[in-house]
Amino acid sequence: MMIAFPEAVERLTAALGGGPSARLAASALIEADALGMPRFGIDLLGEWPADTAPVSKDVNPQATSWRDCSSCFAPLAVAAATLELCTAARRFGVAVVFLRGVRGFGRLAPFVRSLADGGLIGIAGTEGPPFVAAHGGTRPVIGTNPLALAMGQGAERVVIDLASSSGTMADVRSARAEGRPLKDGFALDGTGQPTRTAAEVAALLPRGGQVGSLLGLMVELIAGVAGGGRGDPKGRGVFLLAIDPGGAAEAVDIRNTLAGLQHDWVDGGGHWPRGGGLSAEATLDAAFVQRLDAHLVRMSAQRGG
Amino acid sequence: MMIAFPEAVERLTAALGGGPSARLAASALIEADALGMPRFGIDLLGEWPADTAPVSKDVNPQATSWRDCSSCFAPLAVAAATLELCTAARRFGVAVVFLRGVRGFGRLAPFVRSLADGGLIGIAGTEGPPFVAAHGGTRPVIGTNPLALAMGQGAERVVIDLASSSGTMADVRSARAEGRPLKDGFALDGTGQPTRTAAEVAALLPRGGQVGSLLGLMVELIAGVAGGGRGDPKGRGVFLLAIDPGGAAEAVDIRNTLAGLQHDWVDGGGHWPRGGGLSAEATLDAAFVQRLDAHLVRMSAQRGG
Repeated sequence: MMIAFPEAVERLTAALGGGPSARLAASALIEADALGMPRFGIDLLGEWPADTAPVSKDVNPQATSWRDCSSCFAPLAVAAATLELCTAARRFGVAVVFLRGVRGFGRLAPFVRSLADGGLIGIAGTEGPPFVAAHGGTRPVIGTNPLALAMGQGAERVVIDLASSSGTMADVRSARAEGRPLKDGFALDGTGQPTRTAAEVAALLPRGGQVGSLLGLMVELIAGVAGGGRGDPKGRGVFLLAIDPGGAAEAVDIRNTLAGLQHDWVDGGGHWPRGGGLSAEATLDAAFVQRLDAHLVRMSAQRGG
Repeated sequence: MMIAFPEAVERLTAALGGGPSARLAASALIEADALGMPRFGIDLLGEWPADTAPVSKDVNPQATSWRDCSSCFAPLAVAAATLELCTAARRFGVAVVFLRGVRGFGRLAPFVRSLADGGLIGIAGTEGPPFVAAHGGTRPVIGTNPLALAMGQGAERVVIDLASSSGTMADVRSARAEGRPLKDGFALDGTGQPTRTAAEVAALLPRGGQVGSLLGLMVELIAGVAGGGRGDPKGRGVFLLAIDPGGAAEAVDIRNTLAGLQHDWVDGGGHWPRGGGLSAEATLDAAFVQRLDAHLVRMSAQRGG
């Protein structure tokens, strides 16, 4: 039995307590499964405990805020922060929220896309445990540290989700499981030498050399240092930033400029990134439904429902 | 006759009308010369005309602002915007300014460093005429689009100035002048094929493939689309964003976390980027003094002084 994407979102939203944050978290997780990235999908519900502190609602969000999410279910905490950021950015013109102690919450793309849905430019980054070496370095010092940006709506929408490392430890584990060699330039062994053997990997390499290395460092500086995520054993550091371009008024025709850039980019042979949004007609397969049901049953039991 | 860096800054600051913006612009230009980047140095004074509109001072800067700089001397306009952004970020916690119509103003590093001097996280990017192809593309669609970030003070300060392209058209011109072949992966010819012949270059390539391409696209989206710089024949789009981490209060020990990241980064074999700041003991050579004098004489004559 397949299930339609909106119906799956409906069911999980209810199980997560309902409301806009639950809906955003549910659709982010289910979308990842639909895109073939179960690691970022509903398997993260395994972290959902009934006794999690409810995500505190900030009814009067500030332009900058810092929040410890270590006692919250991470996808809900990131979703709630995203929606509050949307309110704050509309009020102040620009706003940023720093989250720390964030456990697995999935992909950044659905959250920055939600900010774009709100008419904002959404930017986000996340740091994590050190798996990636600096360019020219020999030991892991930062996480895989992706940076994401979304803006626009409809056909010209853009959603960039840019990893700063050559890959992830999950890639290494699957290469190891399948006995595959790694690509060149992917990883270093414990002596700091390049290796293609998954079992020998001690550090991943930055993507594209120096450019990925400095991109990863930027994300570490914002999410890890300013946001306080670095070295926190309770979870990652995440930042979300939103800019309301409405203040440009008539000075800048943002929609047409975006459409023009998209045209030039695609016409010049580039790929316009959309961050994997799904249409409402998307469906998920029977294996997914089985996994979702198992989670919903367990969640209901934990709630004593 | 050599000249000490502070004395050169003093003289140019006076010629630019004095005050904090003139000082920041003067030191940014002179620093570029001292670092061996005359293209971003005092040669930009060739754009200085006595009848430039004075940079308007915004005595009450907002959290977001958009400004047309096409009638201003660009280094002064960027410097004034940087100092006003510093005030705005301290007031609001986070602030962003979008400049358009910006002619040559030099490097981003001195401006984001000035924000870091003010205790802020400074982030900036600039777009420009299309010289760079999208990853996988065949024609130039965006500029060389650097992204810069600075934070911290003293020994642990970090200043990243990250180009998103393999190089610049200036690199192509100098290779052509010297009859040198270009590096592999640097450029495409008019048919979209890789070329190492400078005279054949029709497009530069993004740095590190997809990662540089998407980084350049992010900068284009912020500075070019949201800021309105894209396609403006009067000059580039530039954005400057500043975050005041003071709101973190005791929750995050930013200074020690930054020092710890720096230690890990360097200890793991990475290079800690400092963005080429100069010590007060730096000196510039006689050839520089001659060029500076020529500019100062011309500027004085143009003012009718």
